[in-house]
Amino acid sequence: MELYSGYINKLVDELASLPGIGNKSAQRLAFHLVGMPQERVDRLAKVMMEAKAKVRYCKKCFTLTDSEVCPICSKPGRNQKLIMVVENSRDLAAYEKTGKYEGVYHVLHGAISPMIGIGPGDIKIKELVERCAEDVEEVILATNSSLEGETTAMYISKLLKPMGIKVTRIASGVPVGGDLEYIDEVTLSRALDGRVEL
Amino acid sequence: MELYSGYINKLVDELASLPGIGNKSAQRLAFHLVGMPQERVDRLAKVMMEAKAKVRYCKKCFTLTDSEVCPICSKPGRNQKLIMVVENSRDLAAYEKTGKYEGVYHVLHGAISPMIGIGPGDIKIKELVERCAEDVEEVILATNSSLEGETTAMYISKLLKPMGIKVTRIASGVPVGGDLEYIDEVTLSRALDGRVEL
Repeated sequence: MELYSGYINKLVDELASLPGIGNKSAQRLAFHLVGMPQERVDRLAKVMMEAKAKVRYCKKCFTLTDSEVCPICSKPGRNQKLIMVVENSRDLAAYEKTGKYEGVYHVLHGAISPMIGIGPGDIKIKELVERCAEDVEEVILATNSSLEGETTAMYISKLLKPMGIKVTRIASGVPVGGDLEYIDEVTLSRALDGRVEL
Repeated sequence: MELYSGYINKLVDELASLPGIGNKSAQRLAFHLVGMPQERVDRLAKVMMEAKAKVRYCKKCFTLTDSEVCPICSKPGRNQKLIMVVENSRDLAAYEKTGKYEGVYHVLHGAISPMIGIGPGDIKIKELVERCAEDVEEVILATNSSLEGETTAMYISKLLKPMGIKVTRIASGVPVGGDLEYIDEVTLSRALDGRVEL
């Protein structure tokens, strides 16, 4: 028996298939949506479809944008010879928020992960190599500090170094404000290996 | 400067206004939606608008449903003289899952909460009293065990008892499998007050 409504069940199923939304949250969300004013539901649906339809990859750095070239790539004053490689647009946003970075980005849209069948050809590595054929001074690898991120960084580094490009990796270590007691051993030994002279 | 896309920002704002979705999750969701196949986004949007448009209150118990009378109220074999009062349709679903309840429900759509300006007139109490004018034997108050839920139960009890209806309250005490050590004092003293002879 349908407990309340086939329409709500369908909505719950759709919502629960989104990342980070479990069955309970999907149910709470569905009931909330049904209780919202009609115009707000319509607006949410419209904004969703519009974003899907209009948003595309920047043809230079492959970040998500609604213009042919993203605002960062097209901004005068950004150093086009310095490329930071990130796994996705959220990571780009995180670095951009620091306000400290003057170069441009390259968004891979993933990381190499043989376990789930993602090879080098499935992410934007070929496109990075093509960009590097032009005048690039340094490529900063800012993929995650996970197994997949490290593998990807290694892979890219081996491709770019023979091209005479300086390839660097962001530092890994103890986060600022982090309490040593609660930090895992791998991070601690990385922090030790990467120690700098004061 | 727009970091990536006005469309994504708008979507993030809409998503972040939903309950239980913070700014980070909204961002993750928005990027996920944009990366989803067009037809899945369209389907989600459609299902959302459809649910909003089609779902309404059961004219008997006020749960959310897509028929005039909900499946539970219209099911032969449910005891129409036994009414369980719950705060919302999710609570109804929780009780229905136990498979132990043979009566019908009454959904209040909230609880009395003077702090946030919700009075008895704002929830479906008048409708409950109207239902009780007909042949009802027992009303089980299954509002939450919170201040608001208790207040609402008290209020309803005072309205229905003079009508000669048996009014009961679900037991409150230590949850099954709960470790006494981690249970608050109020629950513990409730459990003590409500002790039953073995």
